[in-house]
Amino acid sequence: MNAPHPVPRSRPAPDALAAVLARLAERFGARASTAGAVREQHASTLTWAANEPPDAVVFPETTEEVAEIVRLCAEHRVPIIPFGTGSSLEGHVNAPFGGVSVDTSRMNAILAVHAEDLDCVVQPGVTRKQLNAHLRDQGLFFPIDPGADASLGGMVATRASGTNAVRYGTMKDNVVALTAVTPDGAIVRTSRRARKSSAGYDLTRLLVGSEGTLGIVTEITLKLHGIPEAISGGVCAFPSVRAACEATILAIQSGIPVARIELLDAAQVRACNAYSKLSLAEAPTLFVEFHGTEAGVREQAERFGEIAEELGGGPFAWATEAEERSRLWQARHDSYWAALSLRPGTKGVATDVCVPISRLADCVEETIADADASGLVAPIVGHVGDGNFHVLPLVDIDDADEVARAKAFVDRLVERALAMEGTCTGEHGVGQKKMRYLEAEHGPAALELMRAIKRAIDPHDIMNPGKVVAPV
Amino acid sequence: MNAPHPVPRSRPAPDALAAVLARLAERFGARASTAGAVREQHASTLTWAANEPPDAVVFPETTEEVAEIVRLCAEHRVPIIPFGTGSSLEGHVNAPFGGVSVDTSRMNAILAVHAEDLDCVVQPGVTRKQLNAHLRDQGLFFPIDPGADASLGGMVATRASGTNAVRYGTMKDNVVALTAVTPDGAIVRTSRRARKSSAGYDLTRLLVGSEGTLGIVTEITLKLHGIPEAISGGVCAFPSVRAACEATILAIQSGIPVARIELLDAAQVRACNAYSKLSLAEAPTLFVEFHGTEAGVREQAERFGEIAEELGGGPFAWATEAEERSRLWQARHDSYWAALSLRPGTKGVATDVCVPISRLADCVEETIADADASGLVAPIVGHVGDGNFHVLPLVDIDDADEVARAKAFVDRLVERALAMEGTCTGEHGVGQKKMRYLEAEHGPAALELMRAIKRAIDPHDIMNPGKVVAPV
Repeated sequence: MNAPHPVPRSRPAPDALAAVLARLAERFGARASTAGAVREQHASTLTWAANEPPDAVVFPETTEEVAEIVRLCAEHRVPIIPFGTGSSLEGHVNAPFGGVSVDTSRMNAILAVHAEDLDCVVQPGVTRKQLNAHLRDQGLFFPIDPGADASLGGMVATRASGTNAVRYGTMKDNVVALTAVTPDGAIVRTSRRARKSSAGYDLTRLLVGSEGTLGIVTEITLKLHGIPEAISGGVCAFPSVRAACEATILAIQSGIPVARIELLDAAQVRACNAYSKLSLAEAPTLFVEFHGTEAGVREQAERFGEIAEELGGGPFAWATEAEERSRLWQARHDSYWAALSLRPGTKGVATDVCVPISRLADCVEETIADADASGLVAPIVGHVGDGNFHVLPLVDIDDADEVARAKAFVDRLVERALAMEGTCTGEHGVGQKKMRYLEAEHGPAALELMRAIKRAIDPHDIMNPGKVVAPV
Repeated sequence: MNAPHPVPRSRPAPDALAAVLARLAERFGARASTAGAVREQHASTLTWAANEPPDAVVFPETTEEVAEIVRLCAEHRVPIIPFGTGSSLEGHVNAPFGGVSVDTSRMNAILAVHAEDLDCVVQPGVTRKQLNAHLRDQGLFFPIDPGADASLGGMVATRASGTNAVRYGTMKDNVVALTAVTPDGAIVRTSRRARKSSAGYDLTRLLVGSEGTLGIVTEITLKLHGIPEAISGGVCAFPSVRAACEATILAIQSGIPVARIELLDAAQVRACNAYSKLSLAEAPTLFVEFHGTEAGVREQAERFGEIAEELGGGPFAWATEAEERSRLWQARHDSYWAALSLRPGTKGVATDVCVPISRLADCVEETIADADASGLVAPIVGHVGDGNFHVLPLVDIDDADEVARAKAFVDRLVERALAMEGTCTGEHGVGQKKMRYLEAEHGPAALELMRAIKRAIDPHDIMNPGKVVAPV
């Protein structure tokens, strides 16, 4: 742990790169591309991170092919950037030092479903919607739902969560085992298929959330759940963000196993009304959903209704029909696009702080006041049961003053969350854009521990360099 | 990752050790001891691992004192062995190369309870019973229950779980953050208090289950749960181990959120009847418990009763009174001592395999047949909802032939579990006694990855050497 901090790496030597590209073309034919459009599609396209394309994109189909690519790149010290669907928000798929983007979209086989064990084994390019469509006939589902139809490999990489996490946990809680190719080209299986184990270091959790900087995931064993017998839910307006947060705290404290509980502030409700043709009252609103038996969800809903009423919320508008419920949740999932439509032509600056739930109302209220004072349009959605919320400043990137105000606003947001024992990112990951906050969040000793791990596993810094724990 | 495999370490140089002992005496006075009885109490005393005492035992009270001890030992390359209550089963607290046992029993303060956030912060010497006694008045509890009144630091170290894990998860799922002293004496905080985070590598999960080989945990932030409004449960006999396992699978698949579901084989029921003065039918039996609302637990219990009946089990004997329930679960918790009383004077050989639940009946049945064929008395208890079971051969350690038969039986047990995609240890940890199975379980590449992490964090191998990933 006394090795020097990592030094910024540079682009590979031209001849090394040329050797890799030639070999990829020879070995993978049309499954390797250096076309400009393909390279640009494989760098950051969402939010305001600049597009930094890789030198080539390759489309492997098996773990062994990935290992071959990694060994080739390792030999020539050429960077490797794993790619799922490109829906990440923090520049994770950019190639600041060039290199080879490893697109896993052809690794999209569902290899096994073990219904009795409530698990399945998938390749990393399988998307969550694809998996759930495959599982439906067996009465099973995979609960993690970040909104986008992300690849499961990408969700592993960012430690994704989303609307169901309050009940079902995050990717950290729902991955049983991984197969990964480490930076030396070795194929590692992190764990066996037993539900729990105390047999050594938790390599599974080390890779979950490592954003492709320690290896490429090539096979994922996931926990599954039975589709609930009954689902109910609806929307409930509150007189204030604080009242909505307090209702959430009370519901969770009293043991209601709420499956989803999402906060939209008044600005976001207005955006959703316009974008998704809803007619909700323009007030802080909770979207909630309960899973269980018929009697169970009835009881949960009644109890929640009482709590909401106590906090001055309501009346609760129940969406009992599956169709109506889908429409509401589709609106929730489209909230990013709805928000952007509030100011067409602007870019959304994705943020993702998460605080202890007792501080959530403080954090959201102070953030709304800060946005107002900064002259920013910045609607909010929140996974309120986890203390995680996204405020999305809508920024005209040609207006330097507005960009500067937005950047300062985001810095203050992170500072505010850290001061409340929170984190700069609840679920999006660090990528390039949040590296600058890691030392403040973790302190120098913990950050150095992370870097010691990175150096030990990837001594030549070929695996997704310039991300997560790289020097700022 | 290309460094040589670790070489076996040796005892510290005599003058280095003398310097450390002198400094500890000077600095900690009566809180440092080299008395033989104290040293022996701080090495393995349970099961058949030989007692390998440390050279000294020190009793720090703060994180800073632990850091001081670690820096002193690091300077002189003297081993450090963290110690909680000594209830581990795999020789975790032995000192095969001597060194200093760091006893955390005086670090037993509950530093904070955040009821709104459902978390608390404790020192590592706090035991689970102490914590639950403290929490009761606030309507909260900490669910992980390995049976023994273990220290929470020890439970972190071994990634403990126990009877409630099927519903509430293991230590991996219930630790929010840790403060730890790394082998260079740095104080690291692994995470903040937010419920979830994607801010870098998961240092929390890296330390959970690392058995003191990567650092000493000095502060723990734990998730808490509301005490359920209603608890019900009871016992149910089945015609076979297979029927009991199938009932468990069906219950879990159909979404019954069973809080505990424990299997005792006929031999273990006989032992419990004798030891705990029960009068259960001597057949494979499930102990179950449901947590929820009054209506919820009634519904869960009814559904489970139907499933049990379908599998030929029952009648279900409900323990509705808290007192009766406590008596049953106390008997379950005393099953280790009950088993030992089947053959007084013998030692129990703790085992801990865990397999995918679909293979549990096969694994248990084959294991019972193997014990019979080997002429061993070996009762079984199992956390059947997790696929984890403990068969406890009772061995006369003066009978070399019996010892040899027991060892071969345990080797076959582990082979059987591994062949079923299981693990050699579900919750006890590796310690000294299970190191020999790790390469077969993980393969050489994953084991080498673990060793690379160990070398990066503890390059001089001072932190609990000779355990987990050490050379066999």
